[in-house]
Amino acid sequence: MNEPAPRVARSSPLPPPAAVGMRIEQVDTPALLLDLDAFEHNLMRLTESLHRTSVRLRPHAKSHKCPEIALRQIARGAVGVCCQKVSEAEAFVHGGVGDVMVANEVVGTQKLARLAELARQARISVCVDDAGNVAQLAHAAREASVKLDVLVEINVGANRCGVEPGEAVLALARLIAQSQGLRFAGVHAYHGAAQHLRTPQQRREAIAHAVTKVQATLGLLESAGLRPEIVTGAGTGTYLLETASGVYNEIQPGSYIFMDADYGRNLSDDGKPVREFEQSLFILATVMSHPVPARAVVDVGLKAHSVDSGMPLVVGVAGAVYTKASDEHGVIELAGPGALKLGQKVWLIPGHCDPTVNLYDWLVCYRGERVEAIWPISARGAFY
Amino acid sequence: MNEPAPRVARSSPLPPPAAVGMRIEQVDTPALLLDLDAFEHNLMRLTESLHRTSVRLRPHAKSHKCPEIALRQIARGAVGVCCQKVSEAEAFVHGGVGDVMVANEVVGTQKLARLAELARQARISVCVDDAGNVAQLAHAAREASVKLDVLVEINVGANRCGVEPGEAVLALARLIAQSQGLRFAGVHAYHGAAQHLRTPQQRREAIAHAVTKVQATLGLLESAGLRPEIVTGAGTGTYLLETASGVYNEIQPGSYIFMDADYGRNLSDDGKPVREFEQSLFILATVMSHPVPARAVVDVGLKAHSVDSGMPLVVGVAGAVYTKASDEHGVIELAGPGALKLGQKVWLIPGHCDPTVNLYDWLVCYRGERVEAIWPISARGAFY
Repeated sequence: MNEPAPRVARSSPLPPPAAVGMRIEQVDTPALLLDLDAFEHNLMRLTESLHRTSVRLRPHAKSHKCPEIALRQIARGAVGVCCQKVSEAEAFVHGGVGDVMVANEVVGTQKLARLAELARQARISVCVDDAGNVAQLAHAAREASVKLDVLVEINVGANRCGVEPGEAVLALARLIAQSQGLRFAGVHAYHGAAQHLRTPQQRREAIAHAVTKVQATLGLLESAGLRPEIVTGAGTGTYLLETASGVYNEIQPGSYIFMDADYGRNLSDDGKPVREFEQSLFILATVMSHPVPARAVVDVGLKAHSVDSGMPLVVGVAGAVYTKASDEHGVIELAGPGALKLGQKVWLIPGHCDPTVNLYDWLVCYRGERVEAIWPISARGAFY
Repeated sequence: MNEPAPRVARSSPLPPPAAVGMRIEQVDTPALLLDLDAFEHNLMRLTESLHRTSVRLRPHAKSHKCPEIALRQIARGAVGVCCQKVSEAEAFVHGGVGDVMVANEVVGTQKLARLAELARQARISVCVDDAGNVAQLAHAAREASVKLDVLVEINVGANRCGVEPGEAVLALARLIAQSQGLRFAGVHAYHGAAQHLRTPQQRREAIAHAVTKVQATLGLLESAGLRPEIVTGAGTGTYLLETASGVYNEIQPGSYIFMDADYGRNLSDDGKPVREFEQSLFILATVMSHPVPARAVVDVGLKAHSVDSGMPLVVGVAGAVYTKASDEHGVIELAGPGALKLGQKVWLIPGHCDPTVNLYDWLVCYRGERVEAIWPISARGAFY
């Protein structure tokens, strides 16, 4: 009783930079904007492209971290969502999603206990690539008196997580099937590295290679009486290939709802950029310094977008190039004088949508020129 | 009254990944760790290096965004803090800091009104590089019935914000001095680009160049009867040079309390890395996949550190190199088998401290092997 109380004040998010009904020009910056027309087009476009197939859609919610979006994806036919972390899964279950796949390995007793606890409220599935992890997962499931659906992750070319195709997959599937508290639910075969290969030929080859590996492994599993219910993978760059493969029965694209500058560099067979989905996600910036005619500085830097896939693109200002980001500044080089003025709002397309969204607490949703809704990015920072 | 209530649910941060008294091994990951011994050494080291000078220390709080740290800097002699955004300034004033310099331009009526409002509670100063902005600032100050201290930002080589040295500075200083509601407080001459020049000779030349520009401008201001009270600039990489210049009377280093991999690449005259400050900031990660002996995957990716200045460094694992970051994964290549095992905690030094800290809600402070305190990063995401 003599111990001092721990000084853990609650860190609280800032209020949103906008209010419903506001004109976009009035929105404070930096702000993350969602064009609802383009977003709804993208939702519909993906649903339509699966129309004559039996492939299920389970979008990856790591892109948006926003239950409001997940519920709209499910209303358009998605069977649930994927996410990467237990704390993300918690945010989506608490936000009303009843079926969440953690498309990733979960390691550590605290996280496993939370994952199992969550399975009391929703259908939860998770991936494994290690026998010891299967045992820990089974222990957590039994402790919580739940049954967890488990998928074996296969390395189909990304060389990140996942066991090699073939016997190693069968061995883990057997172990899962024999583990009290677990159910062997299928295989996870996502080829992340293929999503941003620039030419369609490169993407076709990468996914053909992945499909061959998965197919051989499925044969092995079926011979052993362990036919996987779920064969899942695919992202926005390749999902039509996995869908057409006849092997995958679930896909998990994430970025299609938003798009970004890097996806905008993927090419079609005609050599032009792929134009299947519309850019719906923008960063609204303000020119906060304009010291010389050739250079404007905006209030959006490294803390308001992620530069891992390059700099953001400037929308609708001829010759303007965002050339340099520092912590809170972005330098825009201009082709000539008068292109921008101090205080002017500037629209940017982020280089990479997922880690950029994770920097914001609020998504400012607009239609036409008005703010229609403000959605909390509830799983922002949910990396536990 | 027929309008639906806006659906603005409050976005709330996750609980901390640790509790006071816990052993570090028990801390959940990803976690941002602060070695309190190293941090206190760094605080003391900087204070000592200013001992026989009359130069004031006003650390840049954009690095830590944490009032608990700001108050400790002030307890060690700092006159207040710098920050970059109005919302950061709000967080620090609400956190108990009585003197905050926004070392940046503030543009937009909403932000200016908030800045002026804040001056009712604390001493607030701000930078300008545009005559129109001076007028808007004066208007906001009069509306709030406050007096704002204003500094003219000079471009001393970073080619970002700021007017050119000389007449342009004098013109703005005059305008400020004549504006009701404003007080001409000095000049802001920060050379950001010089901080990470690798050799001491490069840094000396860059700052000598900046000092010459500032000196000439000060002469001009003094002849006009506008002697600046504050001449401020300098970062962790060059602060000894500005301190020794005889021209700067305030310095604003930020990273010195933490350090990072990129500052670790700055060299001394002996060709070895500068070792003035200790690395106090670490990211704690967990090996969450280890599919082949040469590759381990940790749970710390693009959403848990910023890659703008390169990949994080792995601490204390011989031959281990963090080679690739995806959204939630970090690939570590290993020299040989057995270097890491599944579930093992891994310590990383972030590539760039400032944007990395901004990804976390909590700073887990430890001494020896125990968590001693958990500090909220209250200005995390405060980019308005």
